[in-house]
Amino acid sequence: MNWNNRLTEILKIKFPIVQAPMLGVCSPEMVAAISNQGGLGSLPVGGLSAERTLELIQDTKALTSNPFAVNLFANIVPSVNIPIAEQMQDYLEKFALENEISFEKHAPEQLQFHSYENQIEILIAENVRIVSFTFGIPDDASIKKLKDNGVILIGTATCVREAQILEEKGIDIVTAQGIEAGGHRGTFLETERLPQIGSMSLIPQIADNVDIPVLAAGGINDGRTIKAALILGASGVQIGSAFIASDESIAMEAYKEAILNSTDTDSAITRSFSGRWARGIKNKFLIAIEESGLTIPQYPIQGGLASSIRQAATKQNRKDFIPLWAGQSASKAEAKSAAEIFNTLVIQTENL
Amino acid sequence: MNWNNRLTEILKIKFPIVQAPMLGVCSPEMVAAISNQGGLGSLPVGGLSAERTLELIQDTKALTSNPFAVNLFANIVPSVNIPIAEQMQDYLEKFALENEISFEKHAPEQLQFHSYENQIEILIAENVRIVSFTFGIPDDASIKKLKDNGVILIGTATCVREAQILEEKGIDIVTAQGIEAGGHRGTFLETERLPQIGSMSLIPQIADNVDIPVLAAGGINDGRTIKAALILGASGVQIGSAFIASDESIAMEAYKEAILNSTDTDSAITRSFSGRWARGIKNKFLIAIEESGLTIPQYPIQGGLASSIRQAATKQNRKDFIPLWAGQSASKAEAKSAAEIFNTLVIQTENL
Repeated sequence: MNWNNRLTEILKIKFPIVQAPMLGVCSPEMVAAISNQGGLGSLPVGGLSAERTLELIQDTKALTSNPFAVNLFANIVPSVNIPIAEQMQDYLEKFALENEISFEKHAPEQLQFHSYENQIEILIAENVRIVSFTFGIPDDASIKKLKDNGVILIGTATCVREAQILEEKGIDIVTAQGIEAGGHRGTFLETERLPQIGSMSLIPQIADNVDIPVLAAGGINDGRTIKAALILGASGVQIGSAFIASDESIAMEAYKEAILNSTDTDSAITRSFSGRWARGIKNKFLIAIEESGLTIPQYPIQGGLASSIRQAATKQNRKDFIPLWAGQSASKAEAKSAAEIFNTLVIQTENL
Repeated sequence: MNWNNRLTEILKIKFPIVQAPMLGVCSPEMVAAISNQGGLGSLPVGGLSAERTLELIQDTKALTSNPFAVNLFANIVPSVNIPIAEQMQDYLEKFALENEISFEKHAPEQLQFHSYENQIEILIAENVRIVSFTFGIPDDASIKKLKDNGVILIGTATCVREAQILEEKGIDIVTAQGIEAGGHRGTFLETERLPQIGSMSLIPQIADNVDIPVLAAGGINDGRTIKAALILGASGVQIGSAFIASDESIAMEAYKEAILNSTDTDSAITRSFSGRWARGIKNKFLIAIEESGLTIPQYPIQGGLASSIRQAATKQNRKDFIPLWAGQSASKAEAKSAAEIFNTLVIQTENL
């Protein structure tokens, strides 16, 4: 089997297999392991400070000389709706108390969020060659700056129209995120209903409607699914859940176990953790917020309000109180090294 | 390419391509056209009277001597919750008046529904060789009667557990209905949330967890998608939306046009038309019922209450008042003969 295509050519990689950026899961070690095997590791820095972004990039560069992508959240930070935020915070405080989790209360208007705009200079200074983004499109000035510096840009689309908009903006590669995918939905068009398109419909329709190469994301974790995605019109694949239980994953143990023991119906798409739609395994926090009937503040405000719960639960390895982002095939993950998982994907695909 | 596999062997067909049963769309002419080309046509008779069932089977048999499937709705007819039904009926009456559609009011307790049990004898007497079903599993006595008469049974699953239950019940073939699929969801397990699993996740997981052959349904409409489904572990495919605009389709013209002009984000999963979850193109009726905030009576009661609206709208070719069942790739449909569409599918797959 010949892996070379225009995607591997643009990205200067051997295999068109991208490890998905997963904040709180991917370490520089994981990213480097994938890139060292000839795939494309993705370093998630969405929402992080400029300092932390720099540190993570430098850590990754110390571990690989191959290309890797750095992933941004290209959202605009909204202003806080104080009454909605306060109502949610009161609920979270009560919920934390009931569940014996420490909770830190903030005045909602004092919540601080980082914008991707402060990360752009670092990416350029550090000579990052590939930048992927989700939750929107960077502003035109940022796109121009990145492109002027020779950076390859990868955007995320959850429907055909979003893919077309990314192409019109000069983005080089589009990730077609099927409804099977775990974690945050990359949807950025304001529509009445969240697009929830399965990969069997999404990949060929996006491939037919844009000229840039398509990366398929969602439900991909073995030779069969890689081959199917390529036949459907993708030039490559992006794989997330399959790496969550890997040795290099920084996910807490209870999260890894939840992934390994999950079933096809365990996950739901929810705004409860961050304020943005995302697919995760149903747990106590998710159900409580959804059943509260409260208005969930916009991203990233909801995530900011709940951050002390997440931090406390992570320290205590309590899976009912952190987001257990997972795709619909997450149970296919294995507790092995990232390189071993990656190499199995390559061999399975070649043997089909 | 060799099309022969255990599915073609069991069904005694040349190509493992099944035309999906679509009530109000499929005619005996469509079913026979597909079976005459070497595929498997499916005659939908779910919810019809025994007399109408007999008539349709005989009409189809007059047009083909090849195998075709007859499709049943294996649901139990529930008792009517009178206050909920009356509230909905009042709303529908007002809605019909506002939209200048005639409306026929019934005492909800007098609504009459047909059960699949009355159709079983006819299927056996007419020597139907293949029976597919959805919305549940026929009772054990019906399964035994059909199997004792050599009938091949095809069930529908929307998650792994449902596929396993079908296999345990002795069903011969399972249709894995991905979230991409148009029309009614075949879900029969009572769960808190409707399984909404994309084909990229559903097909391999069902194939890995049952020993019976798997038919993939949802988003399939060309060589790429057929090939992908087979690689993912399916032995065959079931195709619906691609035939809605065909010459043999009895769908009204405005419905065919809506299919041909649809986009990937046009459909939603709704209970508004029938009381069961189903995917259709958003229209005035769907949005009105959902926004009414009323409790939607169970299937088939909601469909019964709205039947006069559907009938009047169909006569007037008004697409805003009938269910426009459609999958997420429905726009790939073409206004050609069913045989032509079918043959293109075969050729595209062989040429990949």
